[in-house]
Amino acid sequence: MSTPPQWVQALRPSGPQGHELLAQERAKSTINVDQLSTFLFTKTGLERKQRILKILESEKVFDKSQNYFSGRVDRFERALARSKRLRQLAQEHGFSQDDMMVANDIVSEPGPYGLHESMFLLTLRDQGTPEQHEKFLKPALEYRYIGCYAQTELGHGSNVRGLETTATWNQEDKTFTIHSPSLTASKWWIGSLGRTANHAVVMAQLIVNGKNRGPHPFVVQIRDLETHELLENVYAGDIGPKFGYNTMDNGFLLFNKVKVPHISMLARFSSVAPSSGEYIQPKSASLVYGSMTWVRSTIVLQAGSVLARGVTIATRYCSIRRQFQDRDAPEWEKGENQVINYTTVQIRLLPLLATTFALHFTGSAMMAMYTASMEKMRSGTGGGGMLADLHATSCGLKSLASHTAAEGLEVCRRACGGHGYSSFSGIGPFYADYLPTVTWEGDNYMLTQQVARYLLKTARAVLSGKAKKNQNDTVDILMNYLARQDQGCAFDILGNDSDIVAAFAWRSAFLTFDALKRRDEQKRSWNSLLVDFYRLSRAHSQYFIVKNFHDTLTQPNFKNLDASTRELLHDLFRLYALNTLEQEGSEFYTSAAVTVRQIQLTRSTAIMALLEKVRPHAVALVDAWAFSDFQLDSSLGRADGKVYEDMFRCATTLNPLNKVTVDPYPDSKVLFRKVDGVVKGKL
Amino acid sequence: MSTPPQWVQALRPSGPQGHELLAQERAKSTINVDQLSTFLFTKTGLERKQRILKILESEKVFDKSQNYFSGRVDRFERALARSKRLRQLAQEHGFSQDDMMVANDIVSEPGPYGLHESMFLLTLRDQGTPEQHEKFLKPALEYRYIGCYAQTELGHGSNVRGLETTATWNQEDKTFTIHSPSLTASKWWIGSLGRTANHAVVMAQLIVNGKNRGPHPFVVQIRDLETHELLENVYAGDIGPKFGYNTMDNGFLLFNKVKVPHISMLARFSSVAPSSGEYIQPKSASLVYGSMTWVRSTIVLQAGSVLARGVTIATRYCSIRRQFQDRDAPEWEKGENQVINYTTVQIRLLPLLATTFALHFTGSAMMAMYTASMEKMRSGTGGGGMLADLHATSCGLKSLASHTAAEGLEVCRRACGGHGYSSFSGIGPFYADYLPTVTWEGDNYMLTQQVARYLLKTARAVLSGKAKKNQNDTVDILMNYLARQDQGCAFDILGNDSDIVAAFAWRSAFLTFDALKRRDEQKRSWNSLLVDFYRLSRAHSQYFIVKNFHDTLTQPNFKNLDASTRELLHDLFRLYALNTLEQEGSEFYTSAAVTVRQIQLTRSTAIMALLEKVRPHAVALVDAWAFSDFQLDSSLGRADGKVYEDMFRCATTLNPLNKVTVDPYPDSKVLFRKVDGVVKGKL
Repeated sequence: MSTPPQWVQALRPSGPQGHELLAQERAKSTINVDQLSTFLFTKTGLERKQRILKILESEKVFDKSQNYFSGRVDRFERALARSKRLRQLAQEHGFSQDDMMVANDIVSEPGPYGLHESMFLLTLRDQGTPEQHEKFLKPALEYRYIGCYAQTELGHGSNVRGLETTATWNQEDKTFTIHSPSLTASKWWIGSLGRTANHAVVMAQLIVNGKNRGPHPFVVQIRDLETHELLENVYAGDIGPKFGYNTMDNGFLLFNKVKVPHISMLARFSSVAPSSGEYIQPKSASLVYGSMTWVRSTIVLQAGSVLARGVTIATRYCSIRRQFQDRDAPEWEKGENQVINYTTVQIRLLPLLATTFALHFTGSAMMAMYTASMEKMRSGTGGGGMLADLHATSCGLKSLASHTAAEGLEVCRRACGGHGYSSFSGIGPFYADYLPTVTWEGDNYMLTQQVARYLLKTARAVLSGKAKKNQNDTVDILMNYLARQDQGCAFDILGNDSDIVAAFAWRSAFLTFDALKRRDEQKRSWNSLLVDFYRLSRAHSQYFIVKNFHDTLTQPNFKNLDASTRELLHDLFRLYALNTLEQEGSEFYTSAAVTVRQIQLTRSTAIMALLEKVRPHAVALVDAWAFSDFQLDSSLGRADGKVYEDMFRCATTLNPLNKVTVDPYPDSKVLFRKVDGVVKGKL
Repeated sequence: MSTPPQWVQALRPSGPQGHELLAQERAKSTINVDQLSTFLFTKTGLERKQRILKILESEKVFDKSQNYFSGRVDRFERALARSKRLRQLAQEHGFSQDDMMVANDIVSEPGPYGLHESMFLLTLRDQGTPEQHEKFLKPALEYRYIGCYAQTELGHGSNVRGLETTATWNQEDKTFTIHSPSLTASKWWIGSLGRTANHAVVMAQLIVNGKNRGPHPFVVQIRDLETHELLENVYAGDIGPKFGYNTMDNGFLLFNKVKVPHISMLARFSSVAPSSGEYIQPKSASLVYGSMTWVRSTIVLQAGSVLARGVTIATRYCSIRRQFQDRDAPEWEKGENQVINYTTVQIRLLPLLATTFALHFTGSAMMAMYTASMEKMRSGTGGGGMLADLHATSCGLKSLASHTAAEGLEVCRRACGGHGYSSFSGIGPFYADYLPTVTWEGDNYMLTQQVARYLLKTARAVLSGKAKKNQNDTVDILMNYLARQDQGCAFDILGNDSDIVAAFAWRSAFLTFDALKRRDEQKRSWNSLLVDFYRLSRAHSQYFIVKNFHDTLTQPNFKNLDASTRELLHDLFRLYALNTLEQEGSEFYTSAAVTVRQIQLTRSTAIMALLEKVRPHAVALVDAWAFSDFQLDSSLGRADGKVYEDMFRCATTLNPLNKVTVDPYPDSKVLFRKVDGVVKGKL
């Protein structure tokens, strides 16, 4: 398709222009955007974003304009080119770990080095001996070994103990035989494995002297370092297209009795003595739990920012898009209404806007708690109880936060009306890439059992008097509930912020003891309680988020913010908490944490009033998240508001389908008559 | 990638095989699957499916195996080929309208003739005069004119009165000038327009003698019938890639003062007198309302079947997938548990299974009511009140049903665990194609205002004594509520099915009068009530679905089913109704339709018991939906249960990425060393 004719180029959007509307919105708000950004990300963090952005923006390979048009193979090829270039840049500029995280955020696309740079290196580092670091980690850090982490199998996901791949110790030649006994034993979904990796960390059942010692990690070469072809008796490849993540080569992997040397088993925690063939047991697993807690805290923190992308795009676009006049508006108020003024749009977007802050503060708090308790443990001054609490809590929070972010992105996409469906909205493809987060690092349903198990255990300890006050927060809220249970509670959720937190704590404690009764007294089966456990985990996680949001607003550095910004954050706290309370109303009144009348008032008055208070600051609040246009890659979410001009530009200048002239008649066998001006079928 | 080596080909899934597990499931159920299928679709309907399937399956062009791999242009090209072939087959075999619908269902992909075959032909037929039928409809039926329906604009969606495109009457030469005054006036999202159509029905503001008469339809040629190039002063093209629907060329369209003759304005309802330039007003719009009601009823009916695809796939796969042992299972019960046995899976899938039947019965009932009242109106024996009621109700139902189907598909996808994310699951791409349904034919939020407006109006009529008993169902439930309001209700929802229906009616009536009070007495603004209206519409629609499900079970032909099948359908009715009631618990107890205790019992006992009763029949119930494997196109949902074999086959034999050998090292500029054995970059 050629350049649009002159008369088309002369056209402008009608009515108030997008940039004017956004300028109006920004002028209307009294909050200090830069100050809030700094509060969220620190000055160093913001400077880092700017610095990395500048480097990436100037590299043609990171240009995003053709992302949505290509087929799978071309997209993968470009992603590989980007991964390579990013690695080169990281070396040139000496990127730190934090720099790399920011860079990946800006590129916003899973790449073929993804699993090499995360789980492969991490596992080698954490589970390898010094000798293995020399042999495997060193070439891996130099990208001579490029690896992946092969755990999940075609027939086995969540249940690691059910893995079928075996590693059998051969005493005679001091090797392990890696073998896939069935089709369902095939490794599956393994990122970076399909085409890229030449090594894999393979989780396999260790069999020593005929005895199964459970899953252990083995480093196995799978492709030739020169030709990159598969080694003998190894069969691996890409598993095919997915709902998203198509720039990543998730792969499958099968072994036909492949022998590897003794050093291949990562031996920091457990090992096989080469001389005797004796199996040496692993010590405590607490370090592993620690790193899982860390990973889950990252997911919670990221969930805030993932959701904030969608909210930024939708909030800006809904401030520019105008539909209908207000039905009650006076005659003299001409013109269509910004859709963000409709309460059905506000009720969808503004609680999500509040949620972005809630998740961000909770993720940050979790990391701080984690670091603090690790410190305490290292210095021998306790911290164990707190860490155990955080570990369990992190399971529930991972489940809730990733669910909230995924659902929220889709709500944002739909709030953009028809245009939300266009790839140029920038939400759909990003949502599709984010979705696996609800499944990995523990399936969101599976994980909630961990939380319930911990809460039941803690409740038993509280009832039996074994738990001590101040041991951790969960113990405290359970004790508090027991102490006040008979006199009941009368939380002033509409007048007092601390009472909101207390109401969430009350409901969580109520559900814990309720579940305990069913399990321990009524002897209900575990399976029949899973739905209750899911609800319990959600309730407890919501309590944790509400509590951390509230705590953030009482921290010393919060006072540095301007008064109007502080007040608005308090409103966002109430909006998040009360909206959640309203949606879970049924659980709040059955636990007697609040009355039916309070829920009705929350619904019909309090939330509506908060929407009205937050509305004028919506654009300023999303500005504080400080996303660059380059990162958002969205016509609808542009900071300059040139929505329609950009939609039109993308459709006309970037779209290869417009280079095709079709033959539209059913009886003609010709499909494309011309492609890019070249005749393909007869006219 | 070459054929897998011999040792790979010899591998089988471990444990009980998929086909064995499905056979077990089928043996376990006592219901008569064929009988239930016939009850749902009639014998004629089932035979039609079989007949059309046979025709399509034998045509290579409809082979689906490469659907997920190609880029946008290739996918569109193949879709065009399919549309052409389908048209040829329709002529060869003399396909009826119903045959075409079934064929499109089986192909399961939007195609470039989509809008030509629906809205273009429909508008010409319904809104054209006999002269216009001759001039436009005839060549359109012969596919010489290929058209689209151009209403939505870049800046204007739901608000048709806000369209910017103008059609100005020129008395001097008896023509209309079609013009796009701004960029936001560009037609946008118009299916079949981007590359395929040579004509468009253009909705434009009719301006006669300087006076704007509102939007009217004009038939405008946009491309040359020979060369298929754009005509002068017309600028049109494809709007670019979307979240789904990428086999359709949704387009944009701009006019630079294009003159069209008088006959171009579709003149059945309103027109401009060519001699005088006088504008002739349209008569009643009731016929248009009628066809909108029909379209919305179709969406409700389809929503059931759309959701049933996801439920079929997930139910079969969850019966084959096994993870973990049951925690309470005795030691001697070896092996992993089918995931459908976990209550967290059942609570997600089985209520959705019940919902598929609920939506199917409601859609069918709506169509029957529509036909009956049209009959009555034609014969002059009333039916108007019923039709007005159905029109309003259909808005709320379209909103609820499409929302339920879209959300439900995603729930099904996630219930498949990690493999749900693979395109081979068959759910993701289908979900992405279905999503626009929540926006088109009235945005799901916008539409709920129509329902509320109607309910408020009816409530006013009831209060003022103007409404008559038996006028329609809404009047009756409002009257009944008023009559019993003081004495209250005591519905036995856990013991009596009619009482469940009554509880839903009660809540709907309560919310109606509650909203009326706010609007009429408290004089609340329309905008501040939109959220309440949304809830009201949902409540009323849920009532309608519950009522129609219950009615279906009392119809004469229901008695023809075997007793066990009948009992199971009653269980499904209760599962749908009680699960909905539990989720909306808050509204049910504030309306005093039920007590808090009843909701607690529903949650903890009744629903869990229903899950247990339905569980053994899950596979048989989805079998009754009678989807062919060809239509489902899903490795996970295969009727023969060969899930893992098929996942593996697709990944290894269909996947073009596996033909590529990459250069994985960051310092090499070579990306692909070999493609399909041919050297591309130096080794």
